[in-house]
Amino acid sequence: MSSPLRVGIAGLGTVGASVIRLLERQAASLAASTGRTISLAAVSARDRAKERGIDMKGAQWFDDPVALAQAPGIDLFVELMGGDEGPAREAVEAALKAGKSVVTANKALLAKHGMALAKLAEEKRVALAFEASVAGGIPIVKTLREGLAGNQIGRVYGILNGTCNYILSRMELEKMSFDDCLREAQRLGYAEADPTFDIGGFDTAHKLAILTSLAFGVAVDAEAIHIEGIQSITLEDLTAADDLGYRIKLLGVAQRTPEGIEQRVHPTMVAKTSAIAQVMGVTNAVTIDADAVKELTLVGPGAGGDATASAVVADIADIARGIRSAPFGLPVAALEKAPRRAMQRHEGGYYIRLSVVDRSGAAAAIATRMAQRNISLESIMQKSRGAAKGASSGEPVSVVLLTYATTESNIREALEAALSDGYIAGRPQVIRIERE
Amino acid sequence: MSSPLRVGIAGLGTVGASVIRLLERQAASLAASTGRTISLAAVSARDRAKERGIDMKGAQWFDDPVALAQAPGIDLFVELMGGDEGPAREAVEAALKAGKSVVTANKALLAKHGMALAKLAEEKRVALAFEASVAGGIPIVKTLREGLAGNQIGRVYGILNGTCNYILSRMELEKMSFDDCLREAQRLGYAEADPTFDIGGFDTAHKLAILTSLAFGVAVDAEAIHIEGIQSITLEDLTAADDLGYRIKLLGVAQRTPEGIEQRVHPTMVAKTSAIAQVMGVTNAVTIDADAVKELTLVGPGAGGDATASAVVADIADIARGIRSAPFGLPVAALEKAPRRAMQRHEGGYYIRLSVVDRSGAAAAIATRMAQRNISLESIMQKSRGAAKGASSGEPVSVVLLTYATTESNIREALEAALSDGYIAGRPQVIRIERE
Repeated sequence: MSSPLRVGIAGLGTVGASVIRLLERQAASLAASTGRTISLAAVSARDRAKERGIDMKGAQWFDDPVALAQAPGIDLFVELMGGDEGPAREAVEAALKAGKSVVTANKALLAKHGMALAKLAEEKRVALAFEASVAGGIPIVKTLREGLAGNQIGRVYGILNGTCNYILSRMELEKMSFDDCLREAQRLGYAEADPTFDIGGFDTAHKLAILTSLAFGVAVDAEAIHIEGIQSITLEDLTAADDLGYRIKLLGVAQRTPEGIEQRVHPTMVAKTSAIAQVMGVTNAVTIDADAVKELTLVGPGAGGDATASAVVADIADIARGIRSAPFGLPVAALEKAPRRAMQRHEGGYYIRLSVVDRSGAAAAIATRMAQRNISLESIMQKSRGAAKGASSGEPVSVVLLTYATTESNIREALEAALSDGYIAGRPQVIRIERE
Repeated sequence: MSSPLRVGIAGLGTVGASVIRLLERQAASLAASTGRTISLAAVSARDRAKERGIDMKGAQWFDDPVALAQAPGIDLFVELMGGDEGPAREAVEAALKAGKSVVTANKALLAKHGMALAKLAEEKRVALAFEASVAGGIPIVKTLREGLAGNQIGRVYGILNGTCNYILSRMELEKMSFDDCLREAQRLGYAEADPTFDIGGFDTAHKLAILTSLAFGVAVDAEAIHIEGIQSITLEDLTAADDLGYRIKLLGVAQRTPEGIEQRVHPTMVAKTSAIAQVMGVTNAVTIDADAVKELTLVGPGAGGDATASAVVADIADIARGIRSAPFGLPVAALEKAPRRAMQRHEGGYYIRLSVVDRSGAAAAIATRMAQRNISLESIMQKSRGAAKGASSGEPVSVVLLTYATTESNIREALEAALSDGYIAGRPQVIRIERE
């Protein structure tokens, strides 16, 4: 048996406490499987006095996470503080510079500074592991980095934010409004007091940036991601989707195209029969399209103290075993700076919901604008006035269009032209359709 | 960059040819991610003259796989011949004894000799990797061995045989008989000319034996598995299942209980809304219940040359990277010889379909026999005589019972008692229900 692996943990929230609990409980099997004892050597958090219900035994206390990261008594630094700058970044950099391996759950930090940190880890010949940063307990980083080494990956997409999936699931199942569901999610602790980061799609984008790098062997490029959140999704959209055989999910999608990598986060229509459509509530799921393995889907908990800690502990165990893959699969120098494909060039089907001024000729005019851009319609659905309670003649009616595959720019141009015709009231709702 | 990893492959069927193709196509990225060039140094197969459509370049030819396995010019032996004795076993043993790492897709060999081979690998400090042996392209071995290190696993279950799932899916979707579906599966190449190994559940059992060892840290114990195949499943069962909100899948299930490990392979009723019920056709799926990660499901291709080759190449890449985990997660000496839980002690709900002689008092008598063993009925469904075309009074009618959780022995005893009452014609159909 080799010398013990001495672990220092900065950040003792739900995840940190759970990591300490799992390390203690699994101590014997981790030692047997990795060949090393894993010992909790040091901890750091904001408030030393706080009762956390965990036994930290002889772990040395540090007020300063940077001091912990550099302490000679630790071999491995676990960063669970969060934040893409400040103490988290400083401590991770300090640990790597001091030649210590790092495990982190910090997607924001990796989306912003992943390449620089990976380079530092390479130079110092230490590990930088981040299984917990994407999709919580789902071993998606390991799967992309190691499990699919024989594949060329064409697309990776998934439900990466439990808050959004909870809200969309609940809206659909209980016919509730977005605002009511958001309040419920906040009450249950599934959404933050300021929910912008989740419902705006930014959290999904951070995770997608990491997956894109791993899947395609390219540099992390979070700036390239087209981001739309779920704020504009209404119960009417969910109902229309259901009528058409779809569900609406907030997906992060990255795909390889001849013109470059397309990365996007937006509400998406997925066929009700697809695997990803079955994923409800706070659960996450990732699907990978690859040439050898065709389609692989992983479904599991995307958040929660224990699920996230499970991923952290798996990373710690890998490091104890001596596994030291390049953080993003390839050495940083080998990660291409892939060209971005602009969102205007995105191709796919579209769901479009319009408020149409109920004037004869409106539908024909809109259809003409579509036809002028060679957009073929798969279906067109008009809600009869009677269906809208209390509606009276002269008020706009809802028209839902489903298009066959076309480009984003065609759709934008057709809608602008239709808007200028004066038949459309308000902002058109546009939701992209993702095929399996 | 370290010295090249020289690979020798024995068995050049669909999987072997695909491995060679993937290794060549991924050569650059494999070299970049593992730090070593992977070179095809030697091959062996039955027929040297056969056209395989692959470029084997300068690979040395061996008529004898054992000679290949021991050849000084190879570092890693890939066994793709199949069979639990004979050349496959001899060659794998020879390679390990010669201090060469081994990658194999051979579940039968591992189910029978896995412990002895793992011990040999340990002694020689080489790798024995077998991702391809279970669920084809799904990285389930890696997930159990490395990805869930922080978890205590309570149950692992899955659809592990594409042939059976294809037949059951097609029977259900197209209202076809078992025999017709089997013929179709044979015509399409999804089933062997002698299908016993697949439809009898034996292939699933081999895979389950491997998963059980990895999930629970116990020695492989294929002999302990209770095995039933799908031969007795009728369209009537599938229809009744559908009416009751279930689908029928051939599952391999292993669970930890206070009395020991229960391992079983049998047709199983799963809720139509469950993730596993969505898996149709030749696709495989594995679900893991674990304490930290709760529920994790992996869905993907269970067979096929490219998908299986994807798993083989991932193992080769891990070995090139220097990853050398214990084959079954723990050193062989640490793998407990877990007590088996006898099938009679299995607890769960049951679906029972009986041909009942249509005599007054029959239903009451059967219900009484159930009640005497404290079996509570969730539902009882009797097909009216009119529903069975051409049936006349005096012919047996179908009665379907759904029980709440009880034990296997209670069910067996109640059915024997009911049989002795003389109301039941023919053999009762009993299908266990598996809860998510």
